[in-house]
Amino acid sequence: MTQNYRLHYAPDNASLIIRLALEEMNLPYETLLVDRSVSAQRRPDYLALNPAGKIPTLETPDGVISEVGAILSYLSETHGQMAPQAGHAGRPEFLKWLFFTANTLHPDLIMQFYAHRYGPQEAMDHIRALTAQRLRDHLALLDQALRHAPWSSGETPSVLDYYVVACLRWATLYPVGETGWFKIADYPHLFALCQQLETRPAAQAAIKAEGLGQTPFSAPHYANPPEGVAL
Amino acid sequence: MTQNYRLHYAPDNASLIIRLALEEMNLPYETLLVDRSVSAQRRPDYLALNPAGKIPTLETPDGVISEVGAILSYLSETHGQMAPQAGHAGRPEFLKWLFFTANTLHPDLIMQFYAHRYGPQEAMDHIRALTAQRLRDHLALLDQALRHAPWSSGETPSVLDYYVVACLRWATLYPVGETGWFKIADYPHLFALCQQLETRPAAQAAIKAEGLGQTPFSAPHYANPPEGVAL
Repeated sequence: MTQNYRLHYAPDNASLIIRLALEEMNLPYETLLVDRSVSAQRRPDYLALNPAGKIPTLETPDGVISEVGAILSYLSETHGQMAPQAGHAGRPEFLKWLFFTANTLHPDLIMQFYAHRYGPQEAMDHIRALTAQRLRDHLALLDQALRHAPWSSGETPSVLDYYVVACLRWATLYPVGETGWFKIADYPHLFALCQQLETRPAAQAAIKAEGLGQTPFSAPHYANPPEGVAL
Repeated sequence: MTQNYRLHYAPDNASLIIRLALEEMNLPYETLLVDRSVSAQRRPDYLALNPAGKIPTLETPDGVISEVGAILSYLSETHGQMAPQAGHAGRPEFLKWLFFTANTLHPDLIMQFYAHRYGPQEAMDHIRALTAQRLRDHLALLDQALRHAPWSSGETPSVLDYYVVACLRWATLYPVGETGWFKIADYPHLFALCQQLETRPAAQAAIKAEGLGQTPFSAPHYANPPEGVAL
């Protein structure tokens, strides 16, 4: 099947999750750099594709789509891969944790990384401490949930598995200089998933394209991308 | 088709969105009150169904599901109603705005309503002002998006339409005593959608069950539920 996917991406941004899914599904796609150093995501041509001005955006034969969870849903249902399909066992639980990751884990991570957007400077430490506690709770839930989910594994990963390990990567690295709030070892099942997924060909392709180093999920370093700027 | 749905709900909580979808699809269901006045959502029996301790939870013949967006996805795909289905026109755009509502609009609304959970008391006004500005931006995007979406309308509503008008209801009512940040009239398409949806039988059933008054979306009043406590 030939698909003309075009992924608008920036290195080590949320677009990484979509690249990993496209690679794991073996789908042909091209990438277009969104140059964050000049805020290209706020330019009219990009906003015409994605009015929220967020990265990623995916152009598909069925139209333009954005929001990580939406793109993962679309790709998994369109290609019948990497998720329990509608009407099959595990579907309710898969949807539940996909939305939980998209609407609870991911927003709190963004708040932790960009806390200055959410309150006054003098409240940053307080805001970050509260956010960190929520994040630890979310990750403890996911550590348990994925441990027992038959649709989640290092051998036959779901789209959600890549979403989660990418979040763990960023949790280890950000905010720069203030990463003490998170320790991957506190989530042993998720840590094992990180180690398994980073050896897969899909991860190797992403490592090369975005300069992520050889242990991008379990023991990440800041990206050194061949083009563009990282998170 | 007989479905044994069991909706764990609290009046005027996020479970309202699921009730509206179940009613609109004409699906048989029973409701079980989660008594927030005694924090029943934190009790072991509820946490066994939904470890995040959030309302709603839906018991289905395929297993237990939670997270509003996940339940709406599950119901619409299981019954082939109230959303563009996989492989059909509009599916990417529908998924995009469903996730946008779940992971951007809804979390910022929660932050606006429960700002005290997110930072120190002396920063509340600042946090709320920043959140309000983000919310106005999100709603302006949705006002435009739904205006042009063929799958969104007052005559054949999508699950997302009910999700959005419920959010608008709460935006008008909360935080109690500090509702000046939001004016429904600033979003004329969404306002019209509110007026259309609240006349439908599905809305009338929800109005009766949860004590919402006759204009619950376009000109809401605080709920006066026959059982339990409101938001």
